[in-house]
Amino acid sequence: MPRKNEKLGVLTVGMGAVTTTLMGGVHAVRNGWGKPIGALTQMKPFSELPLGLAELDDLVFAGWDIFPDNAYEAAQKAAVLDETLLKKMKPSLVSHKPMNGVYDPAYLPSLKGTHIKREKSKWALLQAVRNDIRTFLRKNKLSRAVLVLSHSVESYRPQNRALSTFDGFMRALKKNHPGIPPSMIYSAAAFLECVPVINATPNNWGGMDLLSDMSAMSNIPFVGCDLKTGQTFLKSVIAPALRKRCLGVSGWFSTNILGNRDGFVLDDPQAFRSKERSKKAVLNDIFNPKEMPDLYGQFHHKVEINYYPPRGDNKEGWDNIDLFGWLGYPMQIKVNFLCRDSILAAPLVLDLVLLMDWAHRNGRSGPQDWLGFYFKSPVGSSTGKSSHDLSDQYARLEKLLTSSAGKLL
Amino acid sequence: MPRKNEKLGVLTVGMGAVTTTLMGGVHAVRNGWGKPIGALTQMKPFSELPLGLAELDDLVFAGWDIFPDNAYEAAQKAAVLDETLLKKMKPSLVSHKPMNGVYDPAYLPSLKGTHIKREKSKWALLQAVRNDIRTFLRKNKLSRAVLVLSHSVESYRPQNRALSTFDGFMRALKKNHPGIPPSMIYSAAAFLECVPVINATPNNWGGMDLLSDMSAMSNIPFVGCDLKTGQTFLKSVIAPALRKRCLGVSGWFSTNILGNRDGFVLDDPQAFRSKERSKKAVLNDIFNPKEMPDLYGQFHHKVEINYYPPRGDNKEGWDNIDLFGWLGYPMQIKVNFLCRDSILAAPLVLDLVLLMDWAHRNGRSGPQDWLGFYFKSPVGSSTGKSSHDLSDQYARLEKLLTSSAGKLL
Amino acid sequence: MPRKNEKLGVLTVGMGAVTTTLMGGVHAVRNGWGKPIGALTQMKPFSELPLGLAELDDLVFAGWDIFPDNAYEAAQKAAVLDETLLKKMKPSLVSHKPMNGVYDPAYLPSLKGTHIKREKSKWALLQAVRNDIRTFLRKNKLSRAVLVLSHSVESYRPQNRALSTFDGFMRALKKNHPGIPPSMIYSAAAFLECVPVINATPNNWGGMDLLSDMSAMSNIPFVGCDLKTGQTFLKSVIAPALRKRCLGVSGWFSTNILGNRDGFVLDDPQAFRSKERSKKAVLNDIFNPKEMPDLYGQFHHKVEINYYPPRGDNKEGWDNIDLFGWLGYPMQIKVNFLCRDSILAAPLVLDLVLLMDWAHRNGRSGPQDWLGFYFKSPVGSSTGKSSHDLSDQYARLEKLLTSSAGKLL
Amino acid sequence: MPRKNEKLGVLTVGMGAVTTTLMGGVHAVRNGWGKPIGALTQMKPFSELPLGLAELDDLVFAGWDIFPDNAYEAAQKAAVLDETLLKKMKPSLVSHKPMNGVYDPAYLPSLKGTHIKREKSKWALLQAVRNDIRTFLRKNKLSRAVLVLSHSVESYRPQNRALSTFDGFMRALKKNHPGIPPSMIYSAAAFLECVPVINATPNNWGGMDLLSDMSAMSNIPFVGCDLKTGQTFLKSVIAPALRKRCLGVSGWFSTNILGNRDGFVLDDPQAFRSKERSKKAVLNDIFNPKEMPDLYGQFHHKVEINYYPPRGDNKEGWDNIDLFGWLGYPMQIKVNFLCRDSILAAPLVLDLVLLMDWAHRNGRSGPQDWLGFYFKSPVGSSTGKSSHDLSDQYARLEKLLTSSAGKLL
Repeated sequence: MPRKNEKLGVLTVGMGAVTTTLMGGVHAVRNGWGKPIGALTQMKPFSELPLGLAELDDLVFAGWDIFPDNAYEAAQKAAVLDETLLKKMKPSLVSHKPMNGVYDPAYLPSLKGTHIKREKSKWALLQAVRNDIRTFLRKNKLSRAVLVLSHSVESYRPQNRALSTFDGFMRALKKNHPGIPPSMIYSAAAFLECVPVINATPNNWGGMDLLSDMSAMSNIPFVGCDLKTGQTFLKSVIAPALRKRCLGVSGWFSTNILGNRDGFVLDDPQAFRSKERSKKAVLNDIFNPKEMPDLYGQFHHKVEINYYPPRGDNKEGWDNIDLFGWLGYPMQIKVNFLCRDSILAAPLVLDLVLLMDWAHRNGRSGPQDWLGFYFKSPVGSSTGKSSHDLSDQYARLEKLLTSSAGKLL
Repeated sequence: MPRKNEKLGVLTVGMGAVTTTLMGGVHAVRNGWGKPIGALTQMKPFSELPLGLAELDDLVFAGWDIFPDNAYEAAQKAAVLDETLLKKMKPSLVSHKPMNGVYDPAYLPSLKGTHIKREKSKWALLQAVRNDIRTFLRKNKLSRAVLVLSHSVESYRPQNRALSTFDGFMRALKKNHPGIPPSMIYSAAAFLECVPVINATPNNWGGMDLLSDMSAMSNIPFVGCDLKTGQTFLKSVIAPALRKRCLGVSGWFSTNILGNRDGFVLDDPQAFRSKERSKKAVLNDIFNPKEMPDLYGQFHHKVEINYYPPRGDNKEGWDNIDLFGWLGYPMQIKVNFLCRDSILAAPLVLDLVLLMDWAHRNGRSGPQDWLGFYFKSPVGSSTGKSSHDLSDQYARLEKLLTSSAGKLL
Repeated sequence: MPRKNEKLGVLTVGMGAVTTTLMGGVHAVRNGWGKPIGALTQMKPFSELPLGLAELDDLVFAGWDIFPDNAYEAAQKAAVLDETLLKKMKPSLVSHKPMNGVYDPAYLPSLKGTHIKREKSKWALLQAVRNDIRTFLRKNKLSRAVLVLSHSVESYRPQNRALSTFDGFMRALKKNHPGIPPSMIYSAAAFLECVPVINATPNNWGGMDLLSDMSAMSNIPFVGCDLKTGQTFLKSVIAPALRKRCLGVSGWFSTNILGNRDGFVLDDPQAFRSKERSKKAVLNDIFNPKEMPDLYGQFHHKVEINYYPPRGDNKEGWDNIDLFGWLGYPMQIKVNFLCRDSILAAPLVLDLVLLMDWAHRNGRSGPQDWLGFYFKSPVGSSTGKSSHDLSDQYARLEKLLTSSAGKLL
Repeated sequence: MPRKNEKLGVLTVGMGAVTTTLMGGVHAVRNGWGKPIGALTQMKPFSELPLGLAELDDLVFAGWDIFPDNAYEAAQKAAVLDETLLKKMKPSLVSHKPMNGVYDPAYLPSLKGTHIKREKSKWALLQAVRNDIRTFLRKNKLSRAVLVLSHSVESYRPQNRALSTFDGFMRALKKNHPGIPPSMIYSAAAFLECVPVINATPNNWGGMDLLSDMSAMSNIPFVGCDLKTGQTFLKSVIAPALRKRCLGVSGWFSTNILGNRDGFVLDDPQAFRSKERSKKAVLNDIFNPKEMPDLYGQFHHKVEINYYPPRGDNKEGWDNIDLFGWLGYPMQIKVNFLCRDSILAAPLVLDLVLLMDWAHRNGRSGPQDWLGFYFKSPVGSSTGKSSHDLSDQYARLEKLLTSSAGKLL
């Protein structure tokens, strides 16, 4: 069991907008240049619970990327943090150079990775990643780490039966099976090295069951997938409220404009398909046409993501909700969210890193369905172990933490 | 104790848009012309609980108004329901003629009531209303009724010490005290006739404590105030979610346009003041600057209501939320709600009528703080007995009803 | 030359939402049930010009459709006009049965026409349409008519050199050339029968030059294409104003939701391509990056149309404009247009019918570039003979009409 | 007649957000740190006309203010320009210290001026301002200047007959007449010193006729009032387009949130009244209910400005337009403008300074109604000499400048 009184490694797959915003932000908070707004673990009342979470000072970052930019260069390109602040943190960021990434053009046709591992087989790639993890731990004298999948969206692949068991997966790695995405290789390497995994992306929806199994088997906690930041966050808030009020909903149209690398990658229809499945899950679960045919029998749901360069990382969502009330009279709600993708995501990743490390140290393993608060498609939601209603998710998180801390808030 | 196997009287103060939409709608639902969307008591799973609520067929409506229009004429002017439907229900509505209303120009300077009680003192008005209630019950052979305050917004008056006790109030009635609004006279009459009171309006905020005391004293349930329909409903949904996410909020600007009689009356600054207090309560409670100074220390809240005749009853709200996240970076959410005021309100009134009658028959009395789900300013919210968070309010309502029904949903 | 003192035939290709809204509306206006709002020819000051336009009483409607619904049934399905009004006009609409339409699944893969011409070659289809026109004129004792292309959007085809001349086109008809869409067959038939053509659709962008040539050759006026109703109408208003103010624009994102047959057809990518070209023309012309590189050098333009059934004919547009001013500081304008597609289109078609008939009677022929006010892609806009700025287009229309009327407004 | 080959003085009444954004921006443009986006005189094709406008290098700024902040401090408080840019221009701005301002608490009850002239009578204040102007010209060896009224909004006063003539005004100055606002004193001083006046504010609507007379009498050009920047700019674009399309409008609701000093002052109802009159003029002129009763007979117009500190200078407008079309069917347009007040205003002031100086040198005097393009309430609009339609205003400006330049664009 890893010990608390040591530093905690944070390994990020992808060293882009979200990751550098997190790294830079942790540095800023340590220096008093800003506050960790949005991170529940850093705010009252949770920050006062005697849970024994790792401290910000204890975090040691490292990561892989398919481009060679150091964290400062990557943060500059991401253009999330303002110049003045970035310059202050340059000395801290510039030393973070990514390890070579696992790159598979079949899963990421929009980008051409240049800073990549040259191993010939997926099996060899798995060993290379494992070796990276061991080297990182040893060099930094760490006894424990957490791995965060925060790389670009991979093309969608349906569930593959050959990959549904651990044994099948091992065989497939050796045969260089085309159904294995990089996200799977990183996750497997982490489990084999006893490192908890947080899937912040919508990647590998099809393999979620296998990952859950592997994490349970390895006695390592696993959680995902797809951080619930902007539009879907509000969906998981407004939709349950409409249902509680017994208001009918005939349609929900969601569109997004964003201009960062994420948006560029999502312009590819197969990458979008991964994201779409994840984004649609919330409403399709809450507005159940079978349970409530009078209210949701005619429900239409459409989600669009548009790559629109003028915006950079400043994502904007526009939602139109067609609802109806007493005697069927129609009404509309429109929600326009001018958000900042990485600003919303970074504190969630911080929370998850600290909570997953805590879970690991406290003997939890397998899919962590009590962390549904953070995800568009929480592990456990397909089996009913996790709700999509944010208030339920919060209540569950709060209850687990407070009861663990031995006191009520 | 009133018996279930009898009709239930529904006495409405005001026979305007909300009331006629409710009356017409109940008639429509009975005839299969529409569904009671938005009424929790009429929808699964609550409709299946063996609570013994009154049936729609058992409701007998009557009401007071300061204008002589019958329910059909009033519904036509309100223009909430469409013509085709209204014509079908004309025979049912046209027979409903209002009783003369209690009118005090000091509390309603914008309107000039013509169909009003001519009693000289407030004491005499109280007796006249009591007499109306008794006559209504006798003529319709009813053993029980519920009274709904759903009249125009009264001018704001601060809490008056002379009216803080039952004895003081009785003396004040006889002295024709200027601090006693019509809403107080109706409520007192109802309590004295053992009729539960639902305050669907923001009226008499200042006298809420007295009403609570009187209802407890009379062993009669009382609930209010100000139905949470459109904009504030969404506030009680979005604001708690932002707080749960530990996102900061620097401002919330809300404006409304509506063109019905309610809008006309609210154009008067003193009437607006009553409404404003009620509308502001939700956010001021949730975004507590003392508990969370980093997040809400600079919170600004502004609410506007604009009388805008082109819209009639089709209220529209526009909200702008200035929030901030990680390291203080600003973001914005804008919510545009094209709602229908009476369409949202009618099912809430129906629920409250049935639940308050049920509460009464089950021996509950005094302020019913478990019904906060329905109100902008729930009784009990000032003393912490009722939350402003819709999901908490729903959970509490659900728990009480299911445990009463002896089973879990 | 056709004479004024006779009825005017109006032949519509497609008898759907727009056409039935026009037919029903003209009937309603004649009977005083409504006003022809939106039709410049029916409103002061233009209605007072002594131009000798045909009167509403003189219009005789007929049309083709690939479905057999009569005008009443089609109007019911379109659900543009409300039931009460529709019932009043039922006797007038029910007698209008469509002639069999020209149907080519290659151009309309989303729909399966059932009420269609069975001729084997495109040449034979042309003759059949000509015959329909002659029969219509004879049976109704008409000396003149106008044809309106108002059918579903056809799949996009690039300009085809084999179809760039009249002779080539004739040869191609006989050879059943796949590059000839139904819109071309109808237009050619009309020209050969001396009937002016209004292209209210984006169809056959590629063949616009040929149609212009044919109309000039036949001494028949022609105009198009794609009615400028909602979103593009506002673009042609706001974009020129930004340019006049010398404000920079880095992006314009436009999305639409609509649920009528038009929306269903546009869900097909090839049909959308026809529409997209037309919709993009306005801004690409006004924000010229070569002329004004500082202001429009980085301009991004994205247009989406989403089929969203809950809306029916009530189209909604949402536009986001990213602009910048003094020293490059960014700003945003968002425009949300809750419009009604056919309600906006019908009066434009009425104006065009009357003005094109007038033009014809006054000896005008070929492309009518003075009518750019009505179109997304006006004839003449590619050669600079027509502006995309609505105020310029209006000024030109006004000048021609007033000078023709021999007096200034 | 002042000569072109000399520097041009720019005297600003108020040295706040707009003025410092202009001063700083001119400095930035000279140094290549930014572009003068939004200034027609600096952009093609107007910048290429051989009109002989003054160059940016020739401008010499000075101003009055009722607070002692230098231009750098004022710009910092205004928070329009970003810190990095502001620091670069600090050396240039810091030397600009305001002259003591004319302060009358009756006209500006919200602010307490501290850096003010102590003269006892308005007559003496007039002489003091004249003296300031002469001293400024002499010290800077200037032969000419332009004065810009850009101070806070003054409380509204209705037109006063005692102030309707020059003689009456002079008498009133000596008697310290309460009807004379500071804006009047500055304007009169400028006219008496042969300095053209630009009224960028809505101030002194009541005295516009007198100012026009005085400017004509002094042979000095005068122009105003109230810069047309954000919401009203779009009104003057969209409203004429709706009228050109013969669409009916039943209502237009406009609200604004802003948090700068302007917003603070406008929270005072009397100050707002000055602004409201100016803001309402555009639509009331374009949607003329007498000329077009079917379209505008029921038109409602409401304008709100809300002081909302979270926004600072970043003004936001939200407009809802209720329109109707064919047969009266209703539609809605909503416009949300996230603008920057001073960023939009600064280039307009620059244009006006250069064009008014040019007009002066070319012998123009009195109200300059050809500059209506820049104003909410253009001089001449009440007498029909200036339109409120932006495209007409632009056409007129373009025509005058190009014909003056002796060539067509």
